[in-house]
Order: sequence, then structure tokens, then C-alpha cells
Amino acid sequence: MTRTPVAILGATGAVGQKFVALLADHPWFEIVQLVASATRDGRCYGDEVRWREPTSLPDAIAQIRLTTIAPNPEVQIAFSALDASIAHDVEPAWAEAGVMVVSNASAYRMADDVPLIVPEINPDHLALLDRQRAGRMWRGGIVANPNCSTAVLVTALAPLHRAFGLQRAAIATLQAASGAGYPGVPSLDLLGNVIPYIGGEEEKIERELTKILGTYSDARIVPAEILASAMVHRVPVVDGHMVSGSLAFAEAPSPEAAMATLRAFRGSELVQGLPSSPRTPVEVDERADRPQTRLDVDRGQGMTVTVGRVRACPLHDLRFVALGHNLVRGAAGAAIQNAELIRASGALEG
Amino acid sequence: MTRTPVAILGATGAVGQKFVALLADHPWFEIVQLVASATRDGRCYGDEVRWREPTSLPDAIAQIRLTTIAPNPEVQIAFSALDASIAHDVEPAWAEAGVMVVSNASAYRMADDVPLIVPEINPDHLALLDRQRAGRMWRGGIVANPNCSTAVLVTALAPLHRAFGLQRAAIATLQAASGAGYPGVPSLDLLGNVIPYIGGEEEKIERELTKILGTYSDARIVPAEILASAMVHRVPVVDGHMVSGSLAFAEAPSPEAAMATLRAFRGSELVQGLPSSPRTPVEVDERADRPQTRLDVDRGQGMTVTVGRVRACPLHDLRFVALGHNLVRGAAGAAIQNAELIRASGALEG
Amino acid sequence: MTRTPVAILGATGAVGQKFVALLADHPWFEIVQLVASATRDGRCYGDEVRWREPTSLPDAIAQIRLTTIAPNPEVQIAFSALDASIAHDVEPAWAEAGVMVVSNASAYRMADDVPLIVPEINPDHLALLDRQRAGRMWRGGIVANPNCSTAVLVTALAPLHRAFGLQRAAIATLQAASGAGYPGVPSLDLLGNVIPYIGGEEEKIERELTKILGTYSDARIVPAEILASAMVHRVPVVDGHMVSGSLAFAEAPSPEAAMATLRAFRGSELVQGLPSSPRTPVEVDERADRPQTRLDVDRGQGMTVTVGRVRACPLHDLRFVALGHNLVRGAAGAAIQNAELIRASGALEG
Amino acid sequence: MTRTPVAILGATGAVGQKFVALLADHPWFEIVQLVASATRDGRCYGDEVRWREPTSLPDAIAQIRLTTIAPNPEVQIAFSALDASIAHDVEPAWAEAGVMVVSNASAYRMADDVPLIVPEINPDHLALLDRQRAGRMWRGGIVANPNCSTAVLVTALAPLHRAFGLQRAAIATLQAASGAGYPGVPSLDLLGNVIPYIGGEEEKIERELTKILGTYSDARIVPAEILASAMVHRVPVVDGHMVSGSLAFAEAPSPEAAMATLRAFRGSELVQGLPSSPRTPVEVDERADRPQTRLDVDRGQGMTVTVGRVRACPLHDLRFVALGHNLVRGAAGAAIQNAELIRASGALEG
Repeated sequence: MTRTPVAILGATGAVGQKFVALLADHPWFEIVQLVASATRDGRCYGDEVRWREPTSLPDAIAQIRLTTIAPNPEVQIAFSALDASIAHDVEPAWAEAGVMVVSNASAYRMADDVPLIVPEINPDHLALLDRQRAGRMWRGGIVANPNCSTAVLVTALAPLHRAFGLQRAAIATLQAASGAGYPGVPSLDLLGNVIPYIGGEEEKIERELTKILGTYSDARIVPAEILASAMVHRVPVVDGHMVSGSLAFAEAPSPEAAMATLRAFRGSELVQGLPSSPRTPVEVDERADRPQTRLDVDRGQGMTVTVGRVRACPLHDLRFVALGHNLVRGAAGAAIQNAELIRASGALEG
Repeated sequence: MTRTPVAILGATGAVGQKFVALLADHPWFEIVQLVASATRDGRCYGDEVRWREPTSLPDAIAQIRLTTIAPNPEVQIAFSALDASIAHDVEPAWAEAGVMVVSNASAYRMADDVPLIVPEINPDHLALLDRQRAGRMWRGGIVANPNCSTAVLVTALAPLHRAFGLQRAAIATLQAASGAGYPGVPSLDLLGNVIPYIGGEEEKIERELTKILGTYSDARIVPAEILASAMVHRVPVVDGHMVSGSLAFAEAPSPEAAMATLRAFRGSELVQGLPSSPRTPVEVDERADRPQTRLDVDRGQGMTVTVGRVRACPLHDLRFVALGHNLVRGAAGAAIQNAELIRASGALEG
Repeated sequence: MTRTPVAILGATGAVGQKFVALLADHPWFEIVQLVASATRDGRCYGDEVRWREPTSLPDAIAQIRLTTIAPNPEVQIAFSALDASIAHDVEPAWAEAGVMVVSNASAYRMADDVPLIVPEINPDHLALLDRQRAGRMWRGGIVANPNCSTAVLVTALAPLHRAFGLQRAAIATLQAASGAGYPGVPSLDLLGNVIPYIGGEEEKIERELTKILGTYSDARIVPAEILASAMVHRVPVVDGHMVSGSLAFAEAPSPEAAMATLRAFRGSELVQGLPSSPRTPVEVDERADRPQTRLDVDRGQGMTVTVGRVRACPLHDLRFVALGHNLVRGAAGAAIQNAELIRASGALEG
Repeated sequence: MTRTPVAILGATGAVGQKFVALLADHPWFEIVQLVASATRDGRCYGDEVRWREPTSLPDAIAQIRLTTIAPNPEVQIAFSALDASIAHDVEPAWAEAGVMVVSNASAYRMADDVPLIVPEINPDHLALLDRQRAGRMWRGGIVANPNCSTAVLVTALAPLHRAFGLQRAAIATLQAASGAGYPGVPSLDLLGNVIPYIGGEEEKIERELTKILGTYSDARIVPAEILASAMVHRVPVVDGHMVSGSLAFAEAPSPEAAMATLRAFRGSELVQGLPSSPRTPVEVDERADRPQTRLDVDRGQGMTVTVGRVRACPLHDLRFVALGHNLVRGAAGAAIQNAELIRASGALEG
């Protein structure tokens, strides 16, 4: 099987680097283009990137010469790690040129005709692509993955929602420095400190959640009727977003039933077979003080969400804690798994 | 006015040291006794304590010889920084010997006849002392202050509850290392990590809250009818507990009304005049990203709670963030303010 | 005594804010002008600064309108917290306009005719000002304080050098985040990490040391003949630079003699009387594990250097550890103390 | 080839856990016994250990029942992660019972007849075992690896010493929390702090260095004549000891020559073939700001030491920075590599 040629838009940032690291040996995809800001045009990636991944940068990739953001119809997939403001104009241009833009940016996540996908949860939402292509007259397309906190949260909530009907959720997040990109948050702001604010994050969590857990019907997504409130905090950890939640359901499960449901959660067979899919999307850890950010962030190569402390709640039905890797399950890994889903389901051809 | 002779029970720990630091120059109280474990009997405090306060340990106090835990009727007030299990037996013995035990321990906080006091909020609950002394035939007594997280939270909630009738609260905490005492949490557990568990803490917050906001009536406390759920987390900061909450009220206030109410909050005139009372128990900071733990923990010499991000909530009526110093407003400072209240209101004499 | 009108050049950065905080209630100086980049011209300081000091920003200062960098002959002293590249052109322009520039920038520290002053150590080097003014035909002048690490180090070394003749020094530093200014080092680079590199820092330490400990003679400074090697490291602490050193002397002192010398160290009577001078420039702490950055950084309001672990050395004569506040003793506090020295010694009048 | 049955003495601590993690799938060794304190006798390892390794604890090992410290002649190798005071009595008892004790403890490192081995550096020192067995009438033996800081340092110094004759070394260390074991340093002592003291560490570095770099001759080790001074610091990082050094040689190399020598460094063919030997014991990184603790600690699965900033020194000939994993290259990995060397060289049979 030939590997699909892919580009990475915004290749030097924190998410861009994670894309490079995860795609370096990918069985289905081959990096052929790395895009950065115009001032770096023509320079070698290895000279321009301030590489921060623990694995070393492969020589072949280090020598790729950076290009500008002009659409390149010779790649089939463009992974977008662009800022939302830039993505707003760039992603449609690439889609129009015939490229499938698999985007980690927030620009089009909530657009009516853009699938917002977590492969284990809502692969059927990919069907929106037909409407998108028809409506916008694109040969390519845009498929988005959720915000990093949403990704961790919704992976834990989806099986519970399906089984018991989630109605209300009070959510608090404790998010890592790497979620803000690089350079991101100054060390003077984060050393020994908590910042209870991340611009736009609470709204993203509350909105994206209902779209992902919504139902595809008649070429549109009917959002799930879940009342959610998010309270976000940046904490001094490197990688790993923790989310704690208090949940009310249509049919309240016991903690044991909830844990059994979480443990049984699997994607479709197609999804289970994707190269980036972890053995299980959720692991339940019953030790009293788990998950912990530093100890559990890398489970399933960063694609597994660890859930713990599933317990009764005086206010709602259940409380829990979930932890996932914000740059993998919450960003680059999510986009790559989406691209795998798109290719495996034949949607690349349009 | 002569200074009241006081003892500190558990003087070498983190809270004990904070008691020493705050009482070193106190206008009303004079440290005459420092109590530690029996193995240290007779040794100088300065030699035994691993002093961690930023202020230097006064020589006069360094030279005090540690005593064992046997009740000493010659002190009028004993500040208790004991572990709950030890406090359980020791505090009644001192109270029986005629000493007013002003306790930071959890052992008797929820006892029917023990006042659980925050001077700005429920000084009238001190009236329980009469019943306590009569019922237990003590000449002394026990008066408790709340758990460190509860103290921060309830200071922010009390004015809102009075004005608007708090009914439901989903609470998340982000708590500092010093809340676990010394040595407390190993650095290997907390560096670059979040631990979403503190034994017994969630129950304490949920219970103590309703007692403090309850009503004194007919020699007992009728708890406030507030449904609260707490989700606690230990984060890698030194001092300062942050609490975020989503709140529902009988009569929902606008964020502006809530902030005005918080800003106007004052204790009684008697309480405002106590040496440890801050200028205002609550400060509201409207900057988008405040309060922050490291920047705001020391407001009002650690006795002021900073509230920020008062905003609408999709789930309940309001969301907010509060921050306070867990060793001052949440422990030693709270107990000292309680002792001042007891003395100022004439309750020392019994 | 009327207060001297002063300006702060670069008022919004980390050192600039420390200048504002330390000058807010200064008995001798009055802030009348705050200078920032041209894009902020005319805006209120309080709106533009991202205030990070623990003390609150005084209203009167918050309302000062920022100006551009054009020299203002109506101030007598301009405190410079500029980057070296900007300072290079700006500081001479102000000096020419008749202002005494008291600079924390590195631009002119090693210039032959610029005094590089630590008041307790080499106040006589101020005499260079005469040559500077004559040679450059300035009515004002430039006086510099050392680099932040050098300031801590040289305060500990000066008394030892005078008493025992320092000849060789192997120095390692462990420097705080705030030494890099704001935003400075990204949190992703510093959380749980050590960076063994700070551009230009090692050379600054090695050079500035010999100038400060040099001798004024015949209108020039003869550098001290000390062979020094510095190895610098950035560590994840907020404030406080630690320096460890192994030292060889002409006449090797015992650790006890070295500690006695350090303890006896005082500035001249004039210097001791300056408002910013600490009670003692050096405190010796003999506890085995002190100084520690977080616990000792604020001694003497940040102007005292704490020395510990004075012990024999298998390689040279002595080893030691010193700690000081990089923004106070190492930057803004140092410059203010220099300005006080200049005013007290009559050098303002030129 | 059958796997050699091994025991781990002190299996629940930080180093003990690292032994378990590294031996879980070892091709040559099979864990058959886990030893802990007597109070845990008979309990399952999985229930007693507070597992902190990132890899999950294999079930088969979790179910091993802990035993007491009595020597067990049925194992051939006992890996010792004991505290020095306990190791002092226990290790000889096991050796006498016929077991090869491969020890990370400091108790016998400097004993005249105990080999202190780093396989790439001084495998010939193993010959001391003959004298040890003859003199002590043991069928087993004791072989030690160096202190964690020494291990990192000496791996970087050995090739330079051989090529250029190291004579003087001023060393500073920046050591991780995990070097103090578990629970080790309280978080209140290490968050945002530096502690410039680790009991006995400086002496260990200075002494062990000269033994490892010494010469085996006539059944004894003639220590290398190197004058070394160590200044140690504990910094708030999880894993990874950094050492910076200023070095003088008999024949001063240029930085380029030093780097070439470091890059060419290899163990003997026998050593290169050991399962735990990294591809290269030293990697040189020429980027200006490397090595960095968090980014480089895991190179070579923690067995490679990264050296950087090789540069001229105003005091001696060269300066450099080295970084290694204190629990792998500095403890458990080192001991396992030693055991591999012992088995491969036939020394197990005695």
C-alpha cells in the first residue's frame, strides 16, 4: 500500500512538532511538505525548529525545506496546527485546491458542515463531508478534532452518555503548559502558580461537547442536550490535561456500572484497526489517588484516557477524574487518527 | 491590658510554626508554652523545629523548652495544631482543665456542641459554648475553625448566601503542598504533577460548609440547606488554596450584584476591630486572569480571600474563583482570629 | 529635604516593575516619569503594565502617562532598566541632556570611564564620573551596577578578597526565572528542567568581578588579578540567584576566619546610612543546608546576601554558597542604592 | 541460555522499583525473589509497593510474595538497593552464602577489595574479586557501582582522563529529587527551591572518582591522582543529575579534541555486547543550551550520558556540562550492567 503524501501546516510549533514526531514512521502517511511562516521559506526544518520532543528529529525530516502557506494540490492530506486566525483563511484555500485538511485548529470546528470527529465516538459524522463538498464546491475538505480539554473529557463522557443519558455536567480542568503552545506561558507566570483562565477555553468545551455527542441526521448534527459548565485552570505541569466532573444522567448509574461501561468502551472494528487507535480508549484505575498527571499521561502512547475516582456525588449522580495527553489524544494524535479514519473509510477520494 | 498566656499544641509542624510566627508579636496573646511529642520534652524549640517561615524565629521563642501534652491550667488559651487522632483525646483534657482550646484540628468540628467559627460569618455560634460547658462540665472549652479549603470557600460564599440564598454548589479545589503539613507530600509525588485526591477533604468541605452557614437556634445549629459537591486536587504550589465554584441561588444575582455584595462584606464592628481581621475579608479582582495563587496569596497578610472571574454559568447561576492562604485564613490565622473573638466577646471567662 | 525627581526607563518589564515597587514610597526620590516603548506613548502605566509585584500598584503611579524615550532634562536621575542594545544609544543621550543615568543595563558597565558600583564595596570608583563628564562633555553621567549574578557573588567575595587576597575562583550559578525578565523563559523550557546556558552571562561575571574588586588609581580602575571561571545554569525557581564557589587566596583563611570576616563586613558610614542599605550586606548561616533559594531570598528586604556552607576545599582553599535576590540586590535595589550613594556623596550636582 | 535467578534487596524503594522495571523482561536475568522490611514478609509485592514507574507493573511480579532479608543461596545474584547502614551487615551475609551481591549501596564502595565498576571504564577492576573471595572466604562476592552523581561524572571524565591526563576538577552538581529515594525530599522543601546540600555526597564524588579512574595493579587499585572538589545542589526536577565541571589536564586538549575523544569513547567489545550497554556511553550535543535535564535524561534508555558546552575555561583548560539518568546510569541500570559484565566475563562462578 503506498503511503499518502501529507503536509504539516504550522510545523515548528508545539503541536506541529508532535505531528512530525508521530508521523515520522507512520505506516500510512509520508511527510512531504512542512509549512511555516513566510520568513522561513526555503530554510531547513532542522535549522528552524526549536525541537522539544523527547525522540530525536529524523535526519530526512530535518532536511526538508520549509515552504510558505500556498496550497499544494500534490499532497492529499494537510494536517493543520495553525492558529485559528490564520487557519480561517488558509484551510479553505487548501480544501478548495483539493486537499483534505485535517485540522487541530478551532476555526471551523463549530461550522455546520464540518465534521468534528473523535473516531471512537462519532465516526458517522464524517458524512457531513458530502454536504460540505457539495455546498462549498470543494474537491478537498475540512475535518476537525476537538479542543485538547474537550478531547479528554468527551472520550470519558461518550460511553456514559450513550448508556445512561448525560444531562448535566459541572467540569473543572487542570491543564498543562504545553496546551498553550510554544513559547506559550512565561515561566514567571506558571512556576509555583495556578492561572484560572484560558481565553475562550470554557466556551469551546461547552459547545464542542454537545456537537461531538450529537446525532447525525438529515445531513446535519443535532447537538446533544447536555447542560455543561466548565471552569478551567492552567497548572505548572508540562503535559497532560486533567478534567474533574460532577455528572447527572437520565438514568443514574452506580459507580460500578459506570466503570464497567467505561472499561467496555471500544470504537468500531474499523476504528480499532487504525494505526493510532490505542488498545482501549479509556482505562479505569481504581487506586484512590489516580489518575495523576505525570504518571498516567503516556498511557496508550498518549492516546488512552485514564479515568479514576468514579464515586457518588451529593449534587449530581457521579463524580470522576479523567486524564489525557493534550498534545496526543488532545491534538496531533487525534488529527492523525482522524486522517486514518478518513483514509480507511474511503472519504479521501471525495 | 495584660496579654493572655497561651500555649501551642503541636508547635513544630507547618501550622504550629505559622502559629508561632503570627503570635510572636501579638498585641493580646503571649506564647508561654510550646508542646511537642514526648521525645522532645525539655529541649529548646529552636533546636528541634525545622523552621520554614520566611520571618526569622525570635530568640526568646527559640529558647522556650518544649513540654509534653499534659494539660496546663496556667495558660488561658491553647492553640491546637494537632493531628485529628491526637486532638481527639488531648483537646477535651485541656478543656476540662479549664483551658480554652482554639483548635485547627478536625476532631470536634462537627460535634453538636462545638462552635465552628469564622468571625466575619457566624460569631453568634459562639453561644454553643454555654451548652458545651454545661453539658461536658468543663470550665474551659473547644472552639474550632474550619478545614483550610472550607475556610477559603465559605468566606466567599457567606455574603452571597445571605443575600441570595445559596442552594447548590459544584466546587473544585486546587490545593497547595503546605496544606498537607511537613514533611507532607514527597516531592517525587508533586513535582510536575497533580494528585486528584486528599483523604477526607471532600467530605469535610461539604459538611463544614453547611454548619458554618447554618443558623444558631435554641442552643443548636440548624445546618444551611445547601447541596454541595467538592472535587479536590493537590497541585505543585507552595501556599494558597484555590477554589472554583458553580453556584445556584434561590434568587439568582447578576455577576455585578454578586461582586457588589462580596465587596460590601464586612464582619461586625467587634470583628472588624480584632487584630487579625483584614481590612476586608474579601477582595474582588476583575482582571480576567485573577486571582492567581502565587500573586494573590498574601493579600491582607494572608487573611483576605481574593475572588475573581465572577461570571454567568450555563449550568447554575454563577461561576467564580476564590483564593486564600491555607495556613493563615485557612488555619493558624483563623484560629488566632477566633481566639481574639473569644476574648473580645468575654467568652474566655466562661 | 525635597525629593529628587526621577524617571524609570523601561518601566513595564520585570526590573522596571521592581523599580516602581521599590521607589513608590522612597524617602529621597519621586517618580515623575515612566518611559516605555513608543507604541504606548500617552497611555496610563496602570493599563499597560502586567503588574507582577506582590505589593499593589499605587494609584498615583498607575495613572502616570507613559512617555517615549526622548531625554527629559527635568528629571535629575533616570533609572535604566533597558535592554543593552537600546541602552547603548539612549543612556548617553540622557546623560548629555544633564541627567544622571543610574543603569542596570550592561551596555556601559565595562567602559573605562563608567563607574561599576556596589556601594558597600567600591564607592570610591564614583570618582570616575569626573573623567567621564570631562571626556564626554556631559553634564549628567552614567553609573552602572553589576549583572545580577555578579552582584550576589561579588558581595560575598569582596570582604574575603580584601582580607585574604582572592586569586582563583571556580564559580557555578543556579539562577532564577526572573533574571531573564518578562516574558523571559517559556514555562515549557523551565518546568522540571535545568538549562545550563545563559547568553553572555559567564563572560559578564568573569569580567565585572575584576573591575568591581579593582583599584581606583590615577583616574582609572586597575582590575583585580583574579582568575575566575563561571558555569551558569537556569533553574525552575522564581526569584533568587545562588552561586557556589571554590576559592584560592594569597593567604588561605580557615572557614571560621572567613565567616568572621563576612559577618564583620559593612559599608562605609555614609553607605550604612543609605535608605536601601540592609543592616548587614552579608549574613552567614551555619545550618548545614542553607542558604536555600525560596527561604532566604528576601533577607534584608532582598538586599542582604546569605552565605553558607563555608568549608575547606580539596582543590582550592575554601568552598561556599551565596544567595541573593536577583531583582533587588542584583538589579533595581542595587541601582537605587547607587543613586542614593550618588546623591549622598554630592555627585548629582556634577 | 537459561536465565540467572536474581533477588532484589530493597525492592519497594525508588531504586528497587527501577530494578524491577528494568529486569522485568531481561534476557539474562529472572527475578525470583523480592526482599523488603520484615513487617511486609509474605505480602504481595503489588500490594505493598507504591509503584511510580511509567511502565506498568507486570502481574507476575506483582504477585511475588515479599521475603525478609535472610540470605538465600538459591539465587545467584542479589541486586542491592539497600540503605548503606543496612547494606553494611546484609551484603556480606549474602556474599558469604554464595551469592554475588551487585550493589548500588555505598557501604563497600571504597573497601580495598571491592570492585567499584563502570563497565565501559574499568572492567579490569573485577579482578579484585579473587582477592575479596580469598581474603574473606566467600563463595559469593560484592561488586559495587558508583554513587549516582559520580556515575554521570566519571562516564564523561574517563575518556578525557585517559587521553589527556586529568589533574584537577572543580565540579558542581544539580541533582534530581529521585536521587533521594522515596519519600525522600518533602515537596515543601523542593518546590521552587534549591538546597545546596546532600549529606556525604561531595565526599563520595571526590573519592569514588579516583578509585574508578585508578589502575589495577598487584591485586589492588592505585587511585588516580586527581584533585577534585564537588559542590552539590538539589534542584526541583524529577529525574536526571547534571554535573558541570572545570578541568585541568596534563596535556590540555582543545574543545574539539575533547569532543572527538568523547564521541569515540566505547567500552570493550564484551561490554558493548551487554544487553544494558547503550549504543554509545557518551553523546556530545553541540547546541548552545544542551544538555537539558528534562529533554536529554532518557537518551540511550537512560544509560547514555549527554555532554555539552565543551568550551575553554579561564581558570583551567576546559569546561563542560554532563547529564545522565540518576536511577539508570546512576543506580539500577549501572548495577544491572555490572551484573551482565560479571556473568559475561565468567566471574559468577567464582
